[in-house]
Amino acid sequence: MQTSPLLENLIEALRCLPGVGPKSAQRMAYHLLQRDRSGGMALSRVLTEAMSQIGHCEQCRTFTEEDVCTICCNPRRQNTGLLCVVEMPADIQAIEQTGQFSGRYFVLMGHLSPLDGIGPKEIGLDLLQHRLETESFTEVILATNPTIEGDATANYIAEICLQLGIKVSRIAHGIPVGGELEMVDGTTLTHSFIGRRQIE
Amino acid sequence: MQTSPLLENLIEALRCLPGVGPKSAQRMAYHLLQRDRSGGMALSRVLTEAMSQIGHCEQCRTFTEEDVCTICCNPRRQNTGLLCVVEMPADIQAIEQTGQFSGRYFVLMGHLSPLDGIGPKEIGLDLLQHRLETESFTEVILATNPTIEGDATANYIAEICLQLGIKVSRIAHGIPVGGELEMVDGTTLTHSFIGRRQIE
Repeated sequence: MQTSPLLENLIEALRCLPGVGPKSAQRMAYHLLQRDRSGGMALSRVLTEAMSQIGHCEQCRTFTEEDVCTICCNPRRQNTGLLCVVEMPADIQAIEQTGQFSGRYFVLMGHLSPLDGIGPKEIGLDLLQHRLETESFTEVILATNPTIEGDATANYIAEICLQLGIKVSRIAHGIPVGGELEMVDGTTLTHSFIGRRQIE
Repeated sequence: MQTSPLLENLIEALRCLPGVGPKSAQRMAYHLLQRDRSGGMALSRVLTEAMSQIGHCEQCRTFTEEDVCTICCNPRRQNTGLLCVVEMPADIQAIEQTGQFSGRYFVLMGHLSPLDGIGPKEIGLDLLQHRLETESFTEVILATNPTIEGDATANYIAEICLQLGIKVSRIAHGIPVGGELEMVDGTTLTHSFIGRRQIE
């Protein structure tokens, strides 16, 4: 029994966050009330703004509050002619942190999953095909997850690219750097053998 | 580099929550945007309400949006004549879950700490003394934390109670139920010997 219904509501509402159970939610609520009310108010304001204003980029489908996201707008990125296809906006973030890719992205917001009713249209492949036909890309890099669905989605998009005569590649799968051979699962090890590169 | 400044703001704002670092904040932001926008909006509303409306109970100083909290209002709890003194509102929650205590509480919102400028007044001991003098309590149970500061605070309050001729007790400290003797630290073990109870 909480001493305040509003406090109970706050603890319940905090549980919409992933990885937050009853104990963490309680700890968060008390922390905000005891030590950081201004932080709580700021979070509330930004939450409302973000939930109501953030939509999808018209070109790459990632999250943005503008019509077109900052990456798609960037002329330096347009000049590279590279397009990286990923499943989720968080994947863009991970790739950007490596600093290795300076082209543009296309976010599927999922992967093909016919059993769940997710076909090519649901993951925006009509928009992707339209872009491939109308803009000039030198290479499409498929960076979907190395799962059955991710691989199937990559194959499907590869077909589209090949029909349009656009160079297409899949990111390498193998043993993670710093990992130990002994600890790696068989499928990954198989991938690392199939994808071996000749030393010249 | 995020694709959206508003998304960056949201991730930054989520970090005001305890135990939430950059990675968790990003995961939370994407989760809300992708799967639970209505949950995010609800959280925002409750946050504003809670941060602006929740104050302290006039009688026990715990968190409540009313003048007096639901526990202090409850006539059945008033009749027991028991008053439990705790450091934090979260302590009330922990004690309530045991179902063993049916009296009222007094929340210090901290403990005596002269070096930090926290004296008797800062932890509401003037209000506590006033209540002890004007209301009739049969027993005051001191449930401050078993730390140096918590013990000192308990001793200080015990003095007040004794001067007013009110029975006062301290909760037992010893080996946690389910714990192993071998694993318990020396101070706890000492407490468990000092606080031993005769079997009759």
